[in-house]
This record gives sequence, C-alpha cells and structure tokens, in this order.
Amino acid sequence: RSGEMAKLTQLIDNEVFRAYATYTTIVLLKMMLMSLITAYFRITRKAFVNPEDTAPLGKGESAKKYLRTDPDVERARRGHLNDLENIVPFFGIGLLYALSGPDLYTALLHFRIFAGARITHTFAYLIPLPQPTRGLSWAAGYAVTISMAYKVLKTALYL
Amino acid sequence: RSGEMAKLTQLIDNEVFRAYATYTTIVLLKMMLMSLITAYFRITRKAFVNPEDTAPLGKGESAKKYLRTDPDVERARRGHLNDLENIVPFFGIGLLYALSGPDLYTALLHFRIFAGARITHTFAYLIPLPQPTRGLSWAAGYAVTISMAYKVLKTALYL
Amino acid sequence: RSGEMAKLTQLIDNEVFRAYATYTTIVLLKMMLMSLITAYFRITRKAFVNPEDTAPLGKGESAKKYLRTDPDVERARRGHLNDLENIVPFFGIGLLYALSGPDLYTALLHFRIFAGARITHTFAYLIPLPQPTRGLSWAAGYAVTISMAYKVLKTALYL
Repeated sequence: RSGEMAKLTQLIDNEVFRAYATYTTIVLLKMMLMSLITAYFRITRKAFVNPEDTAPLGKGESAKKYLRTDPDVERARRGHLNDLENIVPFFGIGLLYALSGPDLYTALLHFRIFAGARITHTFAYLIPLPQPTRGLSWAAGYAVTISMAYKVLKTALYL
Repeated sequence: RSGEMAKLTQLIDNEVFRAYATYTTIVLLKMMLMSLITAYFRITRKAFVNPEDTAPLGKGESAKKYLRTDPDVERARRGHLNDLENIVPFFGIGLLYALSGPDLYTALLHFRIFAGARITHTFAYLIPLPQPTRGLSWAAGYAVTISMAYKVLKTALYL
Repeated sequence: RSGEMAKLTQLIDNEVFRAYATYTTIVLLKMMLMSLITAYFRITRKAFVNPEDTAPLGKGESAKKYLRTDPDVERARRGHLNDLENIVPFFGIGLLYALSGPDLYTALLHFRIFAGARITHTFAYLIPLPQPTRGLSWAAGYAVTISMAYKVLKTALYL
C-alpha cells in the first residue's frame, strides 16, 4: 500500500494544504491552551465546580466553600467557548476552501488574518483590553471565514 | 506543483464531496449566524456579561445594571451550543462518510435531511415553537449522523 | 466520474486513514451519547430550562417548578462541553496527522490512547470517580493531541 501512502503524502505536500494544516493546528493548539488557563485560575483562585475536585483542600464543610464561581475563571471559560464557536467553522470551511483550489497568496492571507485575529481576541478577552479590540478581532475572524465560505460555495455548490 | 493542485481539485470535483462541501458550509454558516443573533439580543435587551462591554452605556454603577442575563439572550446561546454539539459530529462523520464511497442519491438524502432538520431546530428554538417540533428536528439530525457513522464503520473499520 | 470516486475510495483504503476514521467516529459517537445522557437526567430529575419543555408536566405555576437546575444534569452537561473542547482538536489535528504520513503502529497508538482516555474521562465524570482519575484521563487525551500536532507541524509547517 505504499502507493496509496504516497498519494496521501501528496495532499500534505500541496502548499495551500500545508498552510491550512499549519494555521489550523496553531489555532486549535491556542484553543487547547484555554483549558490550561481555566485550570490555572481554578487552582489559584480556589474556585471549583465538582465536589471531587476540592478533596485536596479539606473535607466536608471546609471544602464546600471552594465550590464557587470566580470572575477570572468565568472569563477564561467564555474565551474558550468563543474559540469553539469560531474556530470550528474556520476548521471546517477552511478545509473545504483549501481543497477548492485557491491561489496560495490569497489562502495565506485568509489563514494569517484568522490566526492573528483569534490570538488578539484571546489577549483582548483575558487582560481584558477595552472595547472595541475584542469586538473587532472577533469580526475579523468572522469575515475571513465568510469569505472562504463564499469561495467554497462558488466552486463546489451542489444542492 | 500544478499536478498536485489538479489532484486536490479532483476531490472537490467529486459530486458526493461537492454536496458534502455545500451542506457542511451551509450548516456551519447557520451556526455562525447564532453569534449575530446573540449579539443582537445582548444589544437590544441591554444584557451583557463583560464589564468592558457596557462602557458605551455609562460609567460606574449606572452601567453595572446591564451586567445581567436575559431570557432571549440565554435562549440564543442554548441554540448555539446545541448547534456545536450536533453540527461538529455531522461535519466530522459526514466528511468520513463522503470519503467512504456512498452513492450520490443516498448521500444527498442524508445531507439534505440534516440541513433541513437543523434549520427547523433553530426556528423551533428561537420563536419558540411548541414541542415536539424542536425535539423531533433534533432527533432527525441525530439519526442522520448515526446512519452516516454506521456506513463509515462498515466501510473503514480498523481498530 | 468513476475514476475520481476510485481515488476517493483510495483515501479510505489507506490503513492509517481507516484507523483515523474508525477512532474519530467512535469518539464523536461517544460525544453524541452525552446528549442522550443529559436528556435522560432532565426527564428523570424533572429539571428543564425551556418553558415549552415542561408542558407535559402541567400548566402554569405547577410546571414552573420544573424550570430548575439539577446536579446530575449539570454534571452531564459539563462532561459534554469537556468533550467538545477536547474531541474537536483531536478530530482536526488527527485528520492532518493522518495525512502527514505517520507509520501505522504509531498512529494506532495515538488514536487508541485518545479514545481510551476519553471513554475513561466520561465514566470518571459521570460516576464520579475520585480524582485524579478524571484529571489524568483528560491529560492523556491532551498529551496525545499535542504529540500529533508536533508531527503535523514538523511535516507540514508553511507559515
């Protein structure tokens, strides 16, 4: 089956597809980082949601007080959910876009703006930066995804 | 590398894959629309969650009263999360299904039912329509995804 | 277009890709199961969030008391969200990894550990098992995804 393997390798050798693979991996890793940031805030702020997670902090009533919400934890969780809502469409529509034969320069432009926008969005959410920084970075990623969706539908439309 | 590009284009030229690309793009765009609907309700109902978002509405205590939940905002957010929970499996299992060599008619039937079900689900959630409209539209999309998963596992199973 | 269909079928005939398709379908189906578990707890605990869902339980004030949160429902929902946060990166990075030409044994090792970790995570969350079971199973899935991301970036990096 080495012939088939070679064909698969050709997919990852295509420059547009390699760029897609690179930027998608970067934004998915960035999204995964939100889990660590939430865990960091849960531990340093002592704000948990599952009773079994407070066991190291004491038993019975003394541990129950750590079952609470904390603004920093909630902020990180909102940033994480916003990533899911926006990075999932980029991953899906971007994959189809990369297979729709865009030219390399245009594709790179889309991928770079999206990744830059989502990284900016995370800083804007967590610091937090005054609006409209978070709003504009969200909108930039959204617009890039719409633009790729337009190319996919123009190339592939089959209803 | 134009030879490789040609091979990629062949993927998007396959009719089943084009149908998959079309319907996946449609449901992902529909999911993205939920962000705009949530933002619309947040602005018109003046119900925000981040203090930095209420700055245009006044300073200090006068703005704090807009940090609140609103039933329409929460409803749109639940619809959005339900989309994530159901459209992600469709996108993933549907991709593998499209690559598993289904016949075009069967594939189109699956994709069309799923897209129709999720659009119905959104109207049923937002209006809201009396049950069991939302429940049945959810179940239709769920059943289609299970059916595609069965085909994928039957074709590709390699544990 | 049977020639193109044949080429598509070659993708699903590749052993690494078949293994990816199998394990991704399994973990996406497992994630979908969380919807049924949440619905089961909502119905048996009579804990709903949408007023239209309580109609079978009575009218007016008598139904309003079922608009409440329940610890088992919330626990299932947290497990579901944790699945989304972790299975989406596996699905995306794993797809690119499967296309990056890993050897079959290494790929199977990654996919099996991830699937086992997420199934363990679900049991640990729902029963619940004492920590660090849930924490370690989460970390195992996370580490596998990072390892695949490293391979993807090493193979495909194009910034």
